[in-house]
Amino acid sequence: MTEPLDADTRLADIRLDHTTVEDARELDIVAEELALYLRRGEHGAVKGFFVVQELADIASLLEHMAPEDALLAMRDLDRQDQAEVFGYLRPAAQVTMAEKMSRAELAALMAAMSHDERADFFKALDPKAQEALLPGLAKAEREDLRRLAAHPEGTVGAIMTSDYATLPPTLTPPQALDALRRQASDVETVYTAYVVDAAHRLLGVVSLRDVLLARTRQTVGEIMEPDPVTARVDAEQEEAATLVARYDLLALPVVDAEGRMVGIVTADDAMDVAEEEATEDIYKASTVGEFDGSVKDASLVALWKARIFWLVLLVFGNIFSGAGIAAFEDVIAGNLALLFFLPLLIASGGNAGAQSATLMVRALATGDVRVADWRGMFLRETAVALGLGVTMAFAVTWIGLWRGGPEIALVVAIAMVVIVVIGALIGVSLPFAFARLDRDPAAASGPLVTSITDVLGVLAYFGIAAALLEIA
Amino acid sequence: MTEPLDADTRLADIRLDHTTVEDARELDIVAEELALYLRRGEHGAVKGFFVVQELADIASLLEHMAPEDALLAMRDLDRQDQAEVFGYLRPAAQVTMAEKMSRAELAALMAAMSHDERADFFKALDPKAQEALLPGLAKAEREDLRRLAAHPEGTVGAIMTSDYATLPPTLTPPQALDALRRQASDVETVYTAYVVDAAHRLLGVVSLRDVLLARTRQTVGEIMEPDPVTARVDAEQEEAATLVARYDLLALPVVDAEGRMVGIVTADDAMDVAEEEATEDIYKASTVGEFDGSVKDASLVALWKARIFWLVLLVFGNIFSGAGIAAFEDVIAGNLALLFFLPLLIASGGNAGAQSATLMVRALATGDVRVADWRGMFLRETAVALGLGVTMAFAVTWIGLWRGGPEIALVVAIAMVVIVVIGALIGVSLPFAFARLDRDPAAASGPLVTSITDVLGVLAYFGIAAALLEIA
Repeated sequence: MTEPLDADTRLADIRLDHTTVEDARELDIVAEELALYLRRGEHGAVKGFFVVQELADIASLLEHMAPEDALLAMRDLDRQDQAEVFGYLRPAAQVTMAEKMSRAELAALMAAMSHDERADFFKALDPKAQEALLPGLAKAEREDLRRLAAHPEGTVGAIMTSDYATLPPTLTPPQALDALRRQASDVETVYTAYVVDAAHRLLGVVSLRDVLLARTRQTVGEIMEPDPVTARVDAEQEEAATLVARYDLLALPVVDAEGRMVGIVTADDAMDVAEEEATEDIYKASTVGEFDGSVKDASLVALWKARIFWLVLLVFGNIFSGAGIAAFEDVIAGNLALLFFLPLLIASGGNAGAQSATLMVRALATGDVRVADWRGMFLRETAVALGLGVTMAFAVTWIGLWRGGPEIALVVAIAMVVIVVIGALIGVSLPFAFARLDRDPAAASGPLVTSITDVLGVLAYFGIAAALLEIA
Repeated sequence: MTEPLDADTRLADIRLDHTTVEDARELDIVAEELALYLRRGEHGAVKGFFVVQELADIASLLEHMAPEDALLAMRDLDRQDQAEVFGYLRPAAQVTMAEKMSRAELAALMAAMSHDERADFFKALDPKAQEALLPGLAKAEREDLRRLAAHPEGTVGAIMTSDYATLPPTLTPPQALDALRRQASDVETVYTAYVVDAAHRLLGVVSLRDVLLARTRQTVGEIMEPDPVTARVDAEQEEAATLVARYDLLALPVVDAEGRMVGIVTADDAMDVAEEEATEDIYKASTVGEFDGSVKDASLVALWKARIFWLVLLVFGNIFSGAGIAAFEDVIAGNLALLFFLPLLIASGGNAGAQSATLMVRALATGDVRVADWRGMFLRETAVALGLGVTMAFAVTWIGLWRGGPEIALVVAIAMVVIVVIGALIGVSLPFAFARLDRDPAAASGPLVTSITDVLGVLAYFGIAAALLEIA
């Protein structure tokens, strides 16, 4: 508690939303109030409070309470809501709460969880806790858990869920509706059902909407969409996000190498993957590596680790720029005015290069551009870079005239065009080069492009100066 | 056509997918083949081809054909599929095809389109074409179009659709199911229905799943979720994306200032917005502005315009670094070896600063960090930056000893720590400063942070050198 509770605050008047749950102080106040009601045993009031909140917001609140209080609070939700709230918790909070639960309580909770969230939670436990947990679960759950948890991180298998609705192709629409009704409480979505044969091979997909609109005489096999979009279980998770976005799917069926259906990736999970991938790419663009948790919770050491590698590597890369300058010490000593323009010129090349790299990396990530397009992109970029360079040369000519006279102005203007074009072409080429080498194009970060451009920029600038000023 | 058609290629054997449609040459071959069938009037074969393709892929193919051929091809789809395929086309392709259609054909197509896509298409037309089109439409469509098209770009209103399912609160589940069945072909989704009163105020939300599972005696008003998550029609579009992602919604209801329901934003449209926003932020991180179309189609002038502003601005910003160097000309002239370390030191500060800025900008964008957290973030970043600076100073000491002896090594090591901390603190502060000034934090780009760090880095480095080497 950071400030005294307003005497008028009543639990029933509190309505959480996505902005209030981001405010730690506000959450503290609500958490304190809720704990008060729990200790007084006023479960009716707690239930009344919960009923008007979104489950995702309740999860944010529970993460803000002591694990014992959070557990007490969760018991005032029905089992299904408990499972959903638990699924929203961060892995660390799940583990802490699970430690406070009895085995029976945890097993019941896990039975109600969606299969993918259950597997994610299971993976967050340490091996000892995993072993302790398994005997309490039903056999089918245990096997499902093992199967889902076995898929490597980053694959479609690791984000799919196994609780999807299936239909045989022979049912009529009313029969299909009944079948879906029976499955409704156990599956992640009933809005898309998967038509499978006896060997569980995927024959087609049928939407609940089509079932509702179909004529009674038809069969599921007739109204289904045959040959639907699928992802392989061992494909990269980005693939699932791409397919869901491109084909506007509610859920993407996942198949194994034999075409047997093994799971679905729902649109909300695909959206999470897309956000995760965007964050990763944004980090990479400025040489920040991966770390666990948010930038707010991550340990300082984890943040240091995620950043130091490239920083040190680039220190060594920049030795070459220093060596370039050292090589031209005579030229510089003969005309110290040249130094004035050094930061401006090499920064311009780096900035233009970082722009090109960003455009290419993003276009490759979203599929706008393919590796095979590199030639066209290179030509387009040359044209744009010439335009940029000439404009910037014009700007810098005036500074050159002011600081160093016509000769210096000419050197600086020519160097600007050359350096900007060099920077841009490095920026456009590097992402394609990485892709060709089967590396992530996003590794073509601004700082890397800038460092390479710096070296060439120093050489180009002083080289042009030496030639034009004849002071070599 | 870039290469001769394989004599064995038959339309029936071709199956498009999300990778083949990215390959312009492959699309050329398919488009040519399809055009052949169309000219021979083999509509059965064309229909057979279309039935196994995804509508999004058909749209990609049509974009690759001459407008006349594309129009002929589209006529082999049923009206509903036509409308969906047309909705997938890029605005420019929509406009070109629409110009080839008769008014009656276009009006029928628009009647079948989802309301948001219809409005987007309408907005893509020039004012003359808009005026020509309106009289052909039914009055309700005309009004709906005007209403949806009136919302400013970037607001929730501009991405919402008005074709959603509604239910009165008094219906029983079977009645509700019938009501949804009747609405199914006219609405974007039947899986979430909106319970509204006579004044069209939103009372609650009910999922089709809950309707299916409810007991026959209950009413929609009893099973609905009251007080659902909503977005205001004039809120920023990012808000819709955030809410859909946070609460795992299939569709987000949109209300006006009086709480009346005016539309929904579906999850797939929210996902598009999230991707668009991520791209915008990634571009901003390297000072690339907005431009129309993809980097592949955009005009060279548009790309030049999107990039030149910041490049020129930063040229002028870098004058200060030049002036900093000029101010220390005596120090430099007295010890030219210092120049060797200049690129390495100022690049390190810029790189560390760009990392910090990236972490903060992304955390602010995803809601991990709020503006009110700036103090804590500043302290954490100071600690991390000290760690980074000391590590990098250690690395650079060896280079200093090798190139310049112990005195230079000491100067360079101290300068490294100071410059990295300066860079990181500028990087962490700038996004918060922009947010405070109601600007987009993403404007704290790597190049901007780097340029500011450069100036201070030059002053710090030569200042430390002057003091320690006593050559001022």
